[in-house]
Amino acid sequence: MRGGTNLLKVRDFNQQVVLEAIRGAGGVSRVEIARQTGLTAQTISNIVRRLLAEGLVIEDGKRPLAGGGKPRVRLRIDPDAGYALGVQIDRDEVYLTLLDLEGRRVRHSRHEMLDGQGPAEVVDTIALSVEEMVRDAGGIGDKTLGLGVACPGPLDPSEGVLYGPPGFAGWGEVPIRRMLEERTGFPVLVDNDAIASAIGERWAGKARGTDSFAYIYNGWGIGAGLFVDGNIFRGATGTAGEIGHIPLDPNGPECSCGNRGCLTRYCLPGEIISSVIAKLEAGEESSLEVGRLEERHVSDLAVVHAAALAGDRVAGEALAVPARMLGKAVVGLVNLLDLQMVVLGGKTFGEAGGIYLEEVERSLRETILYPDRRRVRAELSGAGEHAGAVGAASLILHAAYSPRMGGLEPA
Amino acid sequence: MRGGTNLLKVRDFNQQVVLEAIRGAGGVSRVEIARQTGLTAQTISNIVRRLLAEGLVIEDGKRPLAGGGKPRVRLRIDPDAGYALGVQIDRDEVYLTLLDLEGRRVRHSRHEMLDGQGPAEVVDTIALSVEEMVRDAGGIGDKTLGLGVACPGPLDPSEGVLYGPPGFAGWGEVPIRRMLEERTGFPVLVDNDAIASAIGERWAGKARGTDSFAYIYNGWGIGAGLFVDGNIFRGATGTAGEIGHIPLDPNGPECSCGNRGCLTRYCLPGEIISSVIAKLEAGEESSLEVGRLEERHVSDLAVVHAAALAGDRVAGEALAVPARMLGKAVVGLVNLLDLQMVVLGGKTFGEAGGIYLEEVERSLRETILYPDRRRVRAELSGAGEHAGAVGAASLILHAAYSPRMGGLEPA
Repeated sequence: MRGGTNLLKVRDFNQQVVLEAIRGAGGVSRVEIARQTGLTAQTISNIVRRLLAEGLVIEDGKRPLAGGGKPRVRLRIDPDAGYALGVQIDRDEVYLTLLDLEGRRVRHSRHEMLDGQGPAEVVDTIALSVEEMVRDAGGIGDKTLGLGVACPGPLDPSEGVLYGPPGFAGWGEVPIRRMLEERTGFPVLVDNDAIASAIGERWAGKARGTDSFAYIYNGWGIGAGLFVDGNIFRGATGTAGEIGHIPLDPNGPECSCGNRGCLTRYCLPGEIISSVIAKLEAGEESSLEVGRLEERHVSDLAVVHAAALAGDRVAGEALAVPARMLGKAVVGLVNLLDLQMVVLGGKTFGEAGGIYLEEVERSLRETILYPDRRRVRAELSGAGEHAGAVGAASLILHAAYSPRMGGLEPA
Repeated sequence: MRGGTNLLKVRDFNQQVVLEAIRGAGGVSRVEIARQTGLTAQTISNIVRRLLAEGLVIEDGKRPLAGGGKPRVRLRIDPDAGYALGVQIDRDEVYLTLLDLEGRRVRHSRHEMLDGQGPAEVVDTIALSVEEMVRDAGGIGDKTLGLGVACPGPLDPSEGVLYGPPGFAGWGEVPIRRMLEERTGFPVLVDNDAIASAIGERWAGKARGTDSFAYIYNGWGIGAGLFVDGNIFRGATGTAGEIGHIPLDPNGPECSCGNRGCLTRYCLPGEIISSVIAKLEAGEESSLEVGRLEERHVSDLAVVHAAALAGDRVAGEALAVPARMLGKAVVGLVNLLDLQMVVLGGKTFGEAGGIYLEEVERSLRETILYPDRRRVRAELSGAGEHAGAVGAASLILHAAYSPRMGGLEPA
């Protein structure tokens, strides 16, 4: 068993700033670091010496200068200097991944979660898989910084406790962090899907270096992980990011929150599949069959996505509605928070991400305020359906190496 | 002419924290300050000695202890120790106020702004009024910390430049800060209506001590001043808070932004008055007359407000629609940002603020997420129609005495 206390060995703020500069650019000279960070040459020189000695950073050949001056040594992160494990616990599967320090996926595994499987069994599955993964990757145990967990809320990230996520039958209050620390020996950090995915995207995805963005995570539920001014934004009671309950149509369908026409009522898997079934039952022509869709499951959506991409009209229309409503919600969100970027990820976007992206981009292009003064980008998450697990592992990397902790330090 | 450089004479962070503790409670002992701030008794003692010597704070008698122990001296802000001037420049009027250090209004004046009046004339009006106000208040010039300006955007608060606010004919790029500093000799800070009002409300209004709230300012336009985690939130390009362009109804009226059913299309004075006129022209019975309403002006709303409060059905219905849509937008905003409070203020709410408040409270009560885990308050601004000017003066007090500057320091 390893101790759970030394996760944050890189504590010095300036050192973290320098590391971020090295990480961000994929090869950078000491002079460029000085320019980016405002630190003195002497400070940078000291920090870099320490990072080289610790093996976190490597020197990577010389970059010839355009003017013909003395070539500068480029510094890079050594991807093999550290690893992080991530697990996404979803209502139908557990997905594990192992990232290197550059955020690249080295290993992964997937385990179906059956109805009624309790926390103890799931912790068991995760612990065995972690053990196997670390062994197969070849003696990286000592370099593995910790295990991140992404899970649907409600949960308390500071305590690492889940409070009965919807659809997890029999999961009441679960101290998942303590359970996993005891079983695996690794330090554990816990956060919700959307926030973990946002951190993953900022660590090694499309949002690298972007300080204000929303990651819109759409899986079994829809939520936004918000980064504002370079920090995760959690709100007064930790529930910020509930984009699913922006009311978009006073004449829309009733929502469980008491409102009508909330975004979630258009975007959830069950809603999309119901709309396909209704069209099929009304006799509309389609390559889809009712029989394959009755589960109203995230996994059934793959069939709808494939059909839509192949040009099936019923499937295409079934995705056009949620895409359009998402576009409206995104414009409202960007107008309100003045964001630089919106990233879409999660299984419910799945293979049809491009359909949603196109509509979000159109909506931004046509209706955003101050289009002359700012450019707001929309992107599909590079992590695709594994965004949650990649994000979970990034919780660890972010906590260990980002200059701003944003409340992610373990207690 | 006074210099414009020493506005922030209270620079020491701990001193500001202690001042805020003294300010917030309206009389507090040194022991209570220690409990609130976590500072040592020695640090507090040193700071308080300095504040007493400077005259910012006074000792205010002894509070007997319940247990019969040694009575404790209570510390209070001396309201007469400092003053701040505030001016709201609106398209139809200029409103000036003078606040003491407790945020109480000591003096005020109002000046109509005629169509076509340019920046030079308005600066002239302000400068003369400031001079008179300071003279009439009796030798407080040396104690006056500065002049705050609240104005509709777009504007740049760091430079103090206005960029042609809508409805200000002939106002292009106006360096209002420099112009007013030169004319008055006071340091000047500039911000938009909604942010200034939010700061005013936090300084001396209903949001004292509240770290996450939105001030919804509804005047000639509607916008939100956002406080998150105790700081003003401005967004990536300074436009955060555009609550007016949350799309609320895909079948609603077209909006200038390209969307349909934006909040602003229900809440602006012109929209409300148009809806009254339409009802009157359709022959609905009412105490209102078309002739009195044709200007579609903020000031015409007072007639509608009075009629609604007196039970006129046409006026009541004309306000019910914007109030209901505001309720929906507020719930979306609170769900997204997890705020503790929403404050309503500005002339378009005016005397009918209670009608809007009731609908916002109903909407929060019936449709907010996680009602068991949090209590979200809605309030009418105490500053009423003078929220902008009071907020403008508070820009100065906040910059001088709040522990977090939130980007308000003069350059």
